[in-house]
Amino acid sequence: MTAAAASPVQDAWRIDADRLWRRLMALARIGATPGGGVDRQALSAEEIASWHTMIEWALSAGLEPSTDAVGNLFIALPGTDRDAPPVLAGSHLDSQPGGGRFDGVYGVVAALEVLTTLAERGVRPPTDVLCVAWMNEEGSRFAPGMMGSEAFAGVRDLASIRATRDADGVSVADALDALHAAFPTLRRRPLGFPVAAYLEAHIEQGPVLEARQRTIGVVTGIQGKKTFDIVIEGERGHAGTLAMADRRDALEAFTRIAAALYERIGRHDEAVKFTIGRLQVEPNAPSVVPERVTLRIDLRHPDNAVLGQLGQRLADLCESLAAPCSARVTPLVDAPSNGFDPALQQAIARAAARIGVPHMPILSAAGHDARHMAPLCPSAMIFIPCRDGVSHAEHEWAEPAHVAAGADVLLDVLLPWVGAGKDGRP
Amino acid sequence: MTAAAASPVQDAWRIDADRLWRRLMALARIGATPGGGVDRQALSAEEIASWHTMIEWALSAGLEPSTDAVGNLFIALPGTDRDAPPVLAGSHLDSQPGGGRFDGVYGVVAALEVLTTLAERGVRPPTDVLCVAWMNEEGSRFAPGMMGSEAFAGVRDLASIRATRDADGVSVADALDALHAAFPTLRRRPLGFPVAAYLEAHIEQGPVLEARQRTIGVVTGIQGKKTFDIVIEGERGHAGTLAMADRRDALEAFTRIAAALYERIGRHDEAVKFTIGRLQVEPNAPSVVPERVTLRIDLRHPDNAVLGQLGQRLADLCESLAAPCSARVTPLVDAPSNGFDPALQQAIARAAARIGVPHMPILSAAGHDARHMAPLCPSAMIFIPCRDGVSHAEHEWAEPAHVAAGADVLLDVLLPWVGAGKDGRP
Repeated sequence: MTAAAASPVQDAWRIDADRLWRRLMALARIGATPGGGVDRQALSAEEIASWHTMIEWALSAGLEPSTDAVGNLFIALPGTDRDAPPVLAGSHLDSQPGGGRFDGVYGVVAALEVLTTLAERGVRPPTDVLCVAWMNEEGSRFAPGMMGSEAFAGVRDLASIRATRDADGVSVADALDALHAAFPTLRRRPLGFPVAAYLEAHIEQGPVLEARQRTIGVVTGIQGKKTFDIVIEGERGHAGTLAMADRRDALEAFTRIAAALYERIGRHDEAVKFTIGRLQVEPNAPSVVPERVTLRIDLRHPDNAVLGQLGQRLADLCESLAAPCSARVTPLVDAPSNGFDPALQQAIARAAARIGVPHMPILSAAGHDARHMAPLCPSAMIFIPCRDGVSHAEHEWAEPAHVAAGADVLLDVLLPWVGAGKDGRP
Repeated sequence: MTAAAASPVQDAWRIDADRLWRRLMALARIGATPGGGVDRQALSAEEIASWHTMIEWALSAGLEPSTDAVGNLFIALPGTDRDAPPVLAGSHLDSQPGGGRFDGVYGVVAALEVLTTLAERGVRPPTDVLCVAWMNEEGSRFAPGMMGSEAFAGVRDLASIRATRDADGVSVADALDALHAAFPTLRRRPLGFPVAAYLEAHIEQGPVLEARQRTIGVVTGIQGKKTFDIVIEGERGHAGTLAMADRRDALEAFTRIAAALYERIGRHDEAVKFTIGRLQVEPNAPSVVPERVTLRIDLRHPDNAVLGQLGQRLADLCESLAAPCSARVTPLVDAPSNGFDPALQQAIARAAARIGVPHMPILSAAGHDARHMAPLCPSAMIFIPCRDGVSHAEHEWAEPAHVAAGADVLLDVLLPWVGAGKDGRP
C-alpha cells in the first residue's frame, strides 16, 4: 500500500468495499447458473428481480429510482438544481446466457455504491448524480444489443426496438410493458435527457491489465466495428460426375475469397481484428458440390479511416474473386471508433495515482454503452482486470481489491461534479 | 431404324418393350411421391410391396424366386445344371427419398424381362440365369449403402450390417427379419455363391450419352472413391479483443488447407473429382474466433494408383498446413476403381451394333453394386441415357426406346450363356 493510499484524508472518500462486494455477490444469485455464472437476460424475470433488489438498496439510501420508455433504470442522488443536466454513471444488468458475475453489473453496482457513499455523507451535489442500468446491452435475448443506450442517444428508434422479437417470438414491446407493469409507481424520465458527463466502470474482458499488473485501465476509446453478411452463390452438382472445370463450387469460391481476406485485411496492421465467425454451407451434403455459402464477417480497427478503407477493400475483394460464382455483400453494423474525453481520462489517471494503484491507458476492443454516450457528453470508461482475460463465461472473475479500486476511482473522478472536490481534496 | 434392327431374325430375340415399360411404371406407383418420383427405402413396406409384385411376375412366367440372409432378391430361370455357377443380372429396387422411376429398378426389371422372354421361348439354359435386386444400394435409410452386394461379396460382414440403425433407431436386423417374415416360403440361397458373370443395366446419371446422342454406354469401369473426415482444432477467442498474432483460428487454418487441396488435388488432372461437400464450424457465432472446423472430403479418380497418391498427399497437406491449429484426418470410404471385363464390354458393343443403336465407351462416375461383383466374376454395366443427366430426383426420366434398347442389349449379351447364341444367331 502506498503512502497516498494510507492517508486518512483519502480514506475519508473511499467507498465501502465490503458492501460493494456483498451486493455484487447478491446480484450474482439472481439468475445463478449451476456452473457458478449468471444467466440474466434482458427484460427477463431475473432482470426484473435484479431491479427490485437495486431499488430496495436505492430507497434505503435515500436515492430516487426512475425509468424511461426503453426500460433503462436510473437511480438519482438529488442535486440542488433538479433541472440541470445530471452526471451519469453505470453499465448494464443483463448477461450472456452463460455469463459471469461482473460483466455489466459491476459498473452499475459501483455507481450505486458511489451514490450511497455520497448520500451517507450528506452530500447534496449541485446537479443530480445518476446511476444507470442500460437495457439489453448484451443482445443475447433480443438482437442486436445496446438497445437502451441506442434509444437514449437516438441512434435507434423506439418503435423498431419494440418490434424486435426473441427466439420464442416474444416482442420487446411485450417484455418492456411487463417490466414497467412490475414497477407501477416508478417515475418515468424522458428518453434522451441532456447529460453533463458519463462514466462507465467495466471489467477489461481482455488480458492486458492482468499481464501488465495494472489495477486501472484508463480507456482511451472503443475500436470501431463493422460487420458484413456475405452470400456466395454457385451451383450444386454431383461430386462424382461433375467435371472440376464445369463446377461453380460456392465453397471453393469462399476459400479463394477468405484466403485473400485473411491476408489482405487480417494482416493489414497489428491493430486490425478480422474474424469470420459464422459460416453455413448449403446443401452441406457429403457428395454434393456446394451451391451456397453464407458467412458473417466481424472487422474492427481503432482508426476510423483505416476501418472504412478495409471495409471497402473487403467488399471489393469478395465481389472480384467470386467468379465463376457470385458474391453479395451486405453491411450490417457500422460503429465508428470513438475516443473518450481527454480531461476525463486525465482525471481517471490522477484518481488512480491518488488511490495508489497502478494504471495504464488501454483501448477497448469490445463495444460498450459508453460508445453511444460519447457523442452526447464528455464520456469515459474505467477498466479493472479480469482473470485470464475471460468474460462471457461462468468462471469470469475479478479480484475484490480491483473491484473496490475501480469504484474508488469512479468516486474520485465524480468529486468535482458533486461539489466536494472544488475547494481542494477533503 | 437400321437394316440390322429391322431384320426379322434379330426381332425374334427382342424383349417385350411394352411389358417392360408397363412394369417400370407399375413399380413407380409403389412409393410414388406427389412430385412424380418415388420414395422406396430399403427394407420398407414399399420395398416389400415391390417384392410381392416382382415375385408375382416371376411365378407367372415359371421363374423361381429366392432370397438370402442379407435380403437380396433372386429370380431364377432354371438351367439344366442347377449346381453350376449361374449368370447374374440386376440392380436394386430401393430409391433415394426423392428418387425417380429408373435409378436401380430399371436394371432389375430389364433382367426380369430378359428372363421372361427366354422362358416364354422355352429356353432351358445350361446353368441358372438369375435376376437380382440387391438390398439397400442407396444407403439413404441405412448408411452406408450397397449392403446387399457388399455382404454377397464378403466386403462387409452380416453382423455389422444387421447392427446398423436408421434415423428412427430401427435396426437392419429388425427390418430384415420383417422382410423375410413377409415371404415365409421363399427359398434361402447361401450368401455369396459362385457366379459365372454379372451384368447390370442402369441409367447413366450423367449428361454424356444424351449430349453425344448415344443410346448405349459400354461402361469401362467405375472410378475409385475415397472419403475422409477431417477435424481442424484451434482455440476459441473474442473477435474484438484477441490479437490476430495470438489466434489459433480453425477457420483460417481450414481456408489455408482447402486452398492447397483445391489447387494440388482438385487440379491434378482432368479426371480427378475433389469435393468438400460438408463443413461445420464451431461455435459458429458471429463474434467468436472459430475453435473447430469439421469437414468431409469426397475424392474420386479412375486410376487407383493416382487415387492412392492423391489420398496420401491430401492427408499430408492437411496435417502440414494446419499449424498453429491441428488437423486429424480419418479415412472413411476406400473403394478402388475397377475396370469391367473387356470381353463383356466387347459383347455389349457388338450387341448395340446388332440392334442398330449408337454406343460409346463411358466411365461410371457414380458407384454401383457391380463394383463389388467385378472382383468375383467377369462383370459389366450397360448405361442408357437419362434426361439432362438428372438422377436422384423426382423428374428423373429415361426414354421408352432407350429403356427397351438397354434390355435388348442385355438379352443379346446373355445369349451365349443361355446356349441360344452358341450355334450362331437365331
